[in-house]
Amino acid sequence: MKIKVPTLIIDQQKVTRNLANMVSKVERSSTIFRPHFKTHQSAEIGELFKQNGINCITVSSVSMALYFADYGWNDITIAFPVNIPEIDDINELASRVNLNILVESQYTVIVLSSFITHSLGIFIKIDTGYHRTGLIPDDPELDKIIHLLDSHKHLNFKGFLSHAGHTYSAKGKNEILKIMEDSKDILNKLKQNYIKLFPNIIISYGDTPSCSMTDNLAGFDEIRPGNFVYYDVMQYHMGSCAIEDIAIAVACPVVAAHPQRNELVIYGGAIHLSKEFIAADNDFRLFGYVVNFTKDGWSAPIPGAYVSSLSQEHGIIKMPEKDLKKFKPGDIIGVLPIHSCLAANLLRSNYLLVKQ
Amino acid sequence: MKIKVPTLIIDQQKVTRNLANMVSKVERSSTIFRPHFKTHQSAEIGELFKQNGINCITVSSVSMALYFADYGWNDITIAFPVNIPEIDDINELASRVNLNILVESQYTVIVLSSFITHSLGIFIKIDTGYHRTGLIPDDPELDKIIHLLDSHKHLNFKGFLSHAGHTYSAKGKNEILKIMEDSKDILNKLKQNYIKLFPNIIISYGDTPSCSMTDNLAGFDEIRPGNFVYYDVMQYHMGSCAIEDIAIAVACPVVAAHPQRNELVIYGGAIHLSKEFIAADNDFRLFGYVVNFTKDGWSAPIPGAYVSSLSQEHGIIKMPEKDLKKFKPGDIIGVLPIHSCLAANLLRSNYLLVKQ
Repeated sequence: MKIKVPTLIIDQQKVTRNLANMVSKVERSSTIFRPHFKTHQSAEIGELFKQNGINCITVSSVSMALYFADYGWNDITIAFPVNIPEIDDINELASRVNLNILVESQYTVIVLSSFITHSLGIFIKIDTGYHRTGLIPDDPELDKIIHLLDSHKHLNFKGFLSHAGHTYSAKGKNEILKIMEDSKDILNKLKQNYIKLFPNIIISYGDTPSCSMTDNLAGFDEIRPGNFVYYDVMQYHMGSCAIEDIAIAVACPVVAAHPQRNELVIYGGAIHLSKEFIAADNDFRLFGYVVNFTKDGWSAPIPGAYVSSLSQEHGIIKMPEKDLKKFKPGDIIGVLPIHSCLAANLLRSNYLLVKQ
Repeated sequence: MKIKVPTLIIDQQKVTRNLANMVSKVERSSTIFRPHFKTHQSAEIGELFKQNGINCITVSSVSMALYFADYGWNDITIAFPVNIPEIDDINELASRVNLNILVESQYTVIVLSSFITHSLGIFIKIDTGYHRTGLIPDDPELDKIIHLLDSHKHLNFKGFLSHAGHTYSAKGKNEILKIMEDSKDILNKLKQNYIKLFPNIIISYGDTPSCSMTDNLAGFDEIRPGNFVYYDVMQYHMGSCAIEDIAIAVACPVVAAHPQRNELVIYGGAIHLSKEFIAADNDFRLFGYVVNFTKDGWSAPIPGAYVSSLSQEHGIIKMPEKDLKKFKPGDIIGVLPIHSCLAANLLRSNYLLVKQ
């Protein structure tokens, strides 16, 4: 491959394997699989999902929904609180595809009631402990929202949805699986409260760490992990994946070497990798692992090598002397990103899907 | 203004004022002004510089140089170590405009010698204490590079260039100005060592904090600040600007309110603002200040309100109860970004230049 500038390299074999693993787990559990496409945001990667029989997807914005609708996806959940200024786009999209959106206030439902003229699926966002968005399960607003939905012919109450983002600050697999079980209990209790009145409601749950670590997704009607398609260094550190499951590496040209301080400078900065990092003691920040590209992909991370800082276009790699002396300006080196969703977003228009 | 999604709002009056302040300081010092365009990356903002008589610019990548060359800029310095895989693009660009690039190794100069067939200005990057890139002033590599340049007809030795990025970790104005003075001394000594052999060489210095804080730029032949055009919360915290000098705000729709924890949720996340933050004690992270848009711009930051966390598309704003209750989903709120270069890069295709 001829790399001139920082480029996202996607290993199709790893993507396919990550996808197959999740698909097989989903099939064992008879759960609907509605993967989150915000990680890759790519019609080309979407095709790999389609080949696995996946027809319904999750996105995080109206513009992302429009993009995938234009590529033939026609069952889409926008897993983000309704953005009222885009209500006309939502209405238009609902006329073209099966669209679900998220609400968490009566106010929003009242606004939707006045503007929506096509059938639209509505999930109520439930806060199962992450405390970013959603209603807590005993919020009296819940009943009022459901009452409003029940009286509107285009707004179809679809069920309860949560994102257990607090797994990212949990300590270890047991705590992560406990969060998943707690979320399942909370969502199922809500479902039981309303199932007689609304026999078709479901519960939908999403996050990559718990969906990756569990052996059993039974008890959820639908799951929506996204990051698992690529994984990343953060997921590896949490224990969601093995290092060899990480399916993307950012190819970066080396532009300078400073052996006196064990550093390489790469063309590859915050505008390519994002400023996401993993913090450790004593102000140490990890912005990515470093790999060598090989004939058929890339190596394991070079021991002792890591991206230690990023500015707008520059990355600084710390590397043991014996490895550092192998590199000269113009060589291409790989960085495994901390957060694949952000790196893939930044490099959306500059990627290579490598088929082995 | 009709805002549907996160949008960069640029206050032209503030841009013009920030620019006029720097231009007037530069004129008093008889220094060449070669502003860094990596902050705005915008041909439209570039026009405002042109109206101030500015003809030479700095960029941080070959692609950015190509972009501005296509808009008629013909005196460009790429302030980034030469990216050898783009050498053909550099050569082509050198045939169209007055182009300067940066070197810091013999190896790179030897590669350039073999490929460059048009006149190309070469600055040697000097590390005056930041330790990101560049040669330390007494590195024996310096003489060897200059010797190589002297023997090549297309590679024109232009002088010594530094970026004092260590001002960003300095404590207070005195320390920042001391860094500037030290850099000036280092660069001038180098110039004196070579001026007899190369009578046209200059010294070029760039960073926004010191160029903003000093009253006197004399002693530098050229300066290259960039961020000053917009400033941002980081610059404000360092003392480079007043809060009312910050010339951009990101307009974000409110999507949810959680008064029980004094939080608003906005459509505006890491893919709009970047994950840059300012850290303080006890794990507190500041991802932006919060303002109200007004008829003629925006308010001072709402006291006690700030962006406390960012995920891919979500932002969480902490806000006192009395202010929070004024907002409902669909309202538009403003965020002053921590780092304007990264926010402007993310929102390059979605901005409004507001003329008062």
